[in-house]
Amino acid sequence: MDIRSSSSCRQENLPPYIHKVGPPPKENLFKEFKNRVKETMFADDPFRSFKDQTMSRKFVLGLQAVFPILDWGRSYSLAKFRGDLTAGLTIASLCIPQDIGYSKLANLDPQYGLYSSFVPPLIYAFMGSSRDIAIGPVAVVSLLLGTMLRSEIDPTKNASDYRRLAFTATFFAGVTQATLGILRLGFLIDFLSHAAVVGFMGGAAITIALQQLKGFLGIKKFTRKTDIVSVMKSVWGSAHHGWNWETILIGTSFLAFLILAKAIGKKNKKFFWVPAIAPLISVILSTFFVYITHAEKKGVEIVRHIEKGINPPSANEIYFSGDYVLKGLKIGIVAGMIALTEAVAIGRTFASMKEYQLDGNREMVALGVMNIVGSMTSCYVATGSFSRSAVNFMAGCNTAVSNIVMSLVVFLTLEFITPLFEYTPNAILASIIISAVIGLIDYDAAILIWKIDKFDFIACMGAFLGVVFVSVEIGLLIAVAISFAKILLQVTRPRTAILGRVPRTNVYRNIQQYPEATKVPGVLIVRVDSAIYFSNSNYTRERILRLLMDEEEHLKAADLPRIEFLIVEMSPVTDIDTSGIHALEELLSSLQKRDIKLVLANPGRVVIDKLHASGFVTLIGEHKIFLTVADAVLTCSPKLPDV
Amino acid sequence: MDIRSSSSCRQENLPPYIHKVGPPPKENLFKEFKNRVKETMFADDPFRSFKDQTMSRKFVLGLQAVFPILDWGRSYSLAKFRGDLTAGLTIASLCIPQDIGYSKLANLDPQYGLYSSFVPPLIYAFMGSSRDIAIGPVAVVSLLLGTMLRSEIDPTKNASDYRRLAFTATFFAGVTQATLGILRLGFLIDFLSHAAVVGFMGGAAITIALQQLKGFLGIKKFTRKTDIVSVMKSVWGSAHHGWNWETILIGTSFLAFLILAKAIGKKNKKFFWVPAIAPLISVILSTFFVYITHAEKKGVEIVRHIEKGINPPSANEIYFSGDYVLKGLKIGIVAGMIALTEAVAIGRTFASMKEYQLDGNREMVALGVMNIVGSMTSCYVATGSFSRSAVNFMAGCNTAVSNIVMSLVVFLTLEFITPLFEYTPNAILASIIISAVIGLIDYDAAILIWKIDKFDFIACMGAFLGVVFVSVEIGLLIAVAISFAKILLQVTRPRTAILGRVPRTNVYRNIQQYPEATKVPGVLIVRVDSAIYFSNSNYTRERILRLLMDEEEHLKAADLPRIEFLIVEMSPVTDIDTSGIHALEELLSSLQKRDIKLVLANPGRVVIDKLHASGFVTLIGEHKIFLTVADAVLTCSPKLPDV
Repeated sequence: MDIRSSSSCRQENLPPYIHKVGPPPKENLFKEFKNRVKETMFADDPFRSFKDQTMSRKFVLGLQAVFPILDWGRSYSLAKFRGDLTAGLTIASLCIPQDIGYSKLANLDPQYGLYSSFVPPLIYAFMGSSRDIAIGPVAVVSLLLGTMLRSEIDPTKNASDYRRLAFTATFFAGVTQATLGILRLGFLIDFLSHAAVVGFMGGAAITIALQQLKGFLGIKKFTRKTDIVSVMKSVWGSAHHGWNWETILIGTSFLAFLILAKAIGKKNKKFFWVPAIAPLISVILSTFFVYITHAEKKGVEIVRHIEKGINPPSANEIYFSGDYVLKGLKIGIVAGMIALTEAVAIGRTFASMKEYQLDGNREMVALGVMNIVGSMTSCYVATGSFSRSAVNFMAGCNTAVSNIVMSLVVFLTLEFITPLFEYTPNAILASIIISAVIGLIDYDAAILIWKIDKFDFIACMGAFLGVVFVSVEIGLLIAVAISFAKILLQVTRPRTAILGRVPRTNVYRNIQQYPEATKVPGVLIVRVDSAIYFSNSNYTRERILRLLMDEEEHLKAADLPRIEFLIVEMSPVTDIDTSGIHALEELLSSLQKRDIKLVLANPGRVVIDKLHASGFVTLIGEHKIFLTVADAVLTCSPKLPDV
Repeated sequence: MDIRSSSSCRQENLPPYIHKVGPPPKENLFKEFKNRVKETMFADDPFRSFKDQTMSRKFVLGLQAVFPILDWGRSYSLAKFRGDLTAGLTIASLCIPQDIGYSKLANLDPQYGLYSSFVPPLIYAFMGSSRDIAIGPVAVVSLLLGTMLRSEIDPTKNASDYRRLAFTATFFAGVTQATLGILRLGFLIDFLSHAAVVGFMGGAAITIALQQLKGFLGIKKFTRKTDIVSVMKSVWGSAHHGWNWETILIGTSFLAFLILAKAIGKKNKKFFWVPAIAPLISVILSTFFVYITHAEKKGVEIVRHIEKGINPPSANEIYFSGDYVLKGLKIGIVAGMIALTEAVAIGRTFASMKEYQLDGNREMVALGVMNIVGSMTSCYVATGSFSRSAVNFMAGCNTAVSNIVMSLVVFLTLEFITPLFEYTPNAILASIIISAVIGLIDYDAAILIWKIDKFDFIACMGAFLGVVFVSVEIGLLIAVAISFAKILLQVTRPRTAILGRVPRTNVYRNIQQYPEATKVPGVLIVRVDSAIYFSNSNYTRERILRLLMDEEEHLKAADLPRIEFLIVEMSPVTDIDTSGIHALEELLSSLQKRDIKLVLANPGRVVIDKLHASGFVTLIGEHKIFLTVADAVLTCSPKLPDV
């Protein structure tokens, strides 16, 4: 005997039980609206802990919400500090050479990179809720900022205006971040897809590495463009007289050392500190080497001068009026968004590894305030660094105290050690940056994306090639555009499927997915795989009619009985709007002219509600709406053979 | 005995039959890509008829595709011509006074309206595939064009440059339309939602009616802004000395006549011709009246002069270089898109009423070519008119020949009758426009939208208020922005639902929709109502965990058994991308830490394919994926009580 629900029922001569699909319980309009807003803006329910508390307790909780340090600081212990100290010292040793290099990417003097590793991490430690993120300047944002600022002001000819615009952009980057957080619009950064970010980061890494060829090869005249074609022209053009062999020797040997250190760290997680301190060791060794050999006289470019002392105030340097305000705003918004994307991605990754909750919007406020304060203390845009956060995590950090430790080390460096960097060769900074950004190229992710989703891969490669062959901004634009196009395409051209009955069950599924499923004679079952909205209502209607026409042609050719019922499986139709209902009405009238009956299966809560409100249920007849496809088939085709 | 599938099986002591969810049959990558492109760009399968044809036949078919008249013209008959003649004469009588009025909205001399009713309808008749559309200038596009052009050039001070820019914009409007059609990007206009169009049209109608107060009240000094506040200030400011009582008398009496005629036509469909010829009768009567009373000397403004003769060539007046090219392009794109939206909406409505297919992209090419040719023959943007198409339909048009008839009547008018319009009072044109645009305010649609979808209603009112209180462009911008926001919101914050078992069945449904459904002890069944993409993957994961936490709290409070299985019903999950799979992996690891097993039910074809490709199936275990929720519950909770 077959094991099947309805057929076994019928064999027992009982009438099949068909559950009715009535209108769902009415919801209060205001309540519905409130829920919708809550799910959109307050999806993480941030006020949960405030419920049923006294006023004073609410005040304390509010203060803790703005300054999480007041919360976790109370249970801070010496054991935790031990981890934080090690981690802080490790990331400090990594960040100092990186900062000096990254500030060059932003066309700023080396001390500005160090400034940005002093104030922002301190602010973040008080306001941020991630325990693992390491704050400071990062390669991609530095490059982006540098490119965008340079297209407005020439950094060599007009260094002071350039710097002022950099602070202005930093200020507005902070304002953007804080505003997004306060207005709880953090979800906007989700619109940059993972694939696009992978491509963008990879492209930016290559662009940054290419830029380093200037310092690495000791080229004096270098292009200002960042695309690969211009850079390679510049490099080959200067091959005969512009390369400096001493520089190349220093650069290559230390790059080999850094890459070896990385390999060691990768092979054995216990040696994570090897690649972390290798850059500082390289700096010390190469500086000492240049100092004793006076290689700078043989054309090896050196850092020369880093301003001593901590961050000077810069609030009065920010443009608040004039032409540059708008330009600063534009650059700030772009840099702020990219910085956010990076910081939030890092924060989320480590939070999910250590299983703690991270409030994205609160993070944005913290990052925003940190950059606003930074812009007033001579810092440029800081954010979470991929490489340093990973080191921080592996070094066993427990809280944001590791950022405070790092910040203090940078403070000491600024106060006492900067003169020692005078003889540091630029080639070593180039090597450090190259070895750092290599990690941003995520082959594995790209391969996985190719395997999973070809369209995602196009987005990924589009962003990558855009950055490498045109410019950072164009790459970013491509990434955003493709991400949006994907969403829009999905809602414009939803998939449809013809369903058949899976053998030995009462279940109806896509016959392309389950080739063993069989069609029911006289009935065409179509599933629409999307909400029916204005953007796809016409397409959906035409698509269903086309499926019907194809099927009819096929049946005629095979001399099989004609179709009498069209069942539309609505399970994936999560919503419908006025245009969608119009489309259903038009479908109904087209079917009536062909003498085919329209039947709906399993409309969801929102859909059935709207079908009732619009009167479509009355039009089609309440008895034509079923809980399942099986019920619908049972009623439409009672002569269904017992397959 | 309960009538239920699986339980009845178990009562018969047979092992329950569980169908396996394997990977779907592999599709060739190239074929998949081709299908995807075909569904997006060639959803209507335009080459279907070309298949398996000889070369010469293909050539004929191709020619017929570009000029549908070659197809339907072969079966044209005298019987059809009778209907087309009546319809053509009726819409001609309606279009002549409207054209003169609409050209004023576009700040052009009256003859340009007539020109635009001569050439474009002729071109359309040869290339268009709609049988019912009536082509010519329309109120909304005229207003939009007038407002946008005026913000660039002053039409009174610099009439010739203004006219040249108008032709330039018309040219680019045509290019935009034809390009969209040729590139088969017609679906882009679907992104303007029905609700937004209703609001925009209503707002434009009110704005146009307000603009007519100038002619209607005989005001000389009138504001150039279109928002209601400026217009009302202008009207009240001139109340004491600026209003002309003779003008008001003529205007009001004929407006009353026109509205009465409309009411008659609405009451009895047989009298559809009454409102159709009422405008022409008004024009004749009022012109005669002014001519014999010499009311123009008492301050009644008259048309004065309409250039005699047909369209002069204007190809050399189009700007192809200089500053105005870009401005013309911008205005042309906006006006072209709006004109398209209107024409396609009309075409679709009548095509579905008469049950014939309309190829949207081919229509766009026809409209585009028509406007390009128009721009070279002194026409401004023409498109399908709502009111005249309805009259055309009711007058019994059969083919586009009615447009040819109308075009010929306009030709005769231009050649012989224009001097007779000299004494036509402007007030009568104002009355005609007011009575015409009133029909664009669709209260019923707005009420229906409110009933069906509150968010749609916000879009509708946003567009409406934007047009009425700010400007046509701002209203349009609001309409587009809200339409997009709706789509994006849907994919960012998908709905989720907790499922329960519908009593007496084996079906699991949303417990909010079916309050009678009961939860299964020890199992939480969650349904995700959207594709899981980068834009919602984080939200979806967090939302599922939050539902789980809420449920656990609730169970703990009620001292019920803890949850052991989380079943995710994937039926509405139509697609997943790399971010989505990351989210699932993170969900899995969070659940493992809580000792809860993750089970998936009914992943679709694309989803299961990607789950396999990414290795998630191996991670979760193939035996944790089921065809239905019922199967999953059966396996998870074999001790399920027979409810």
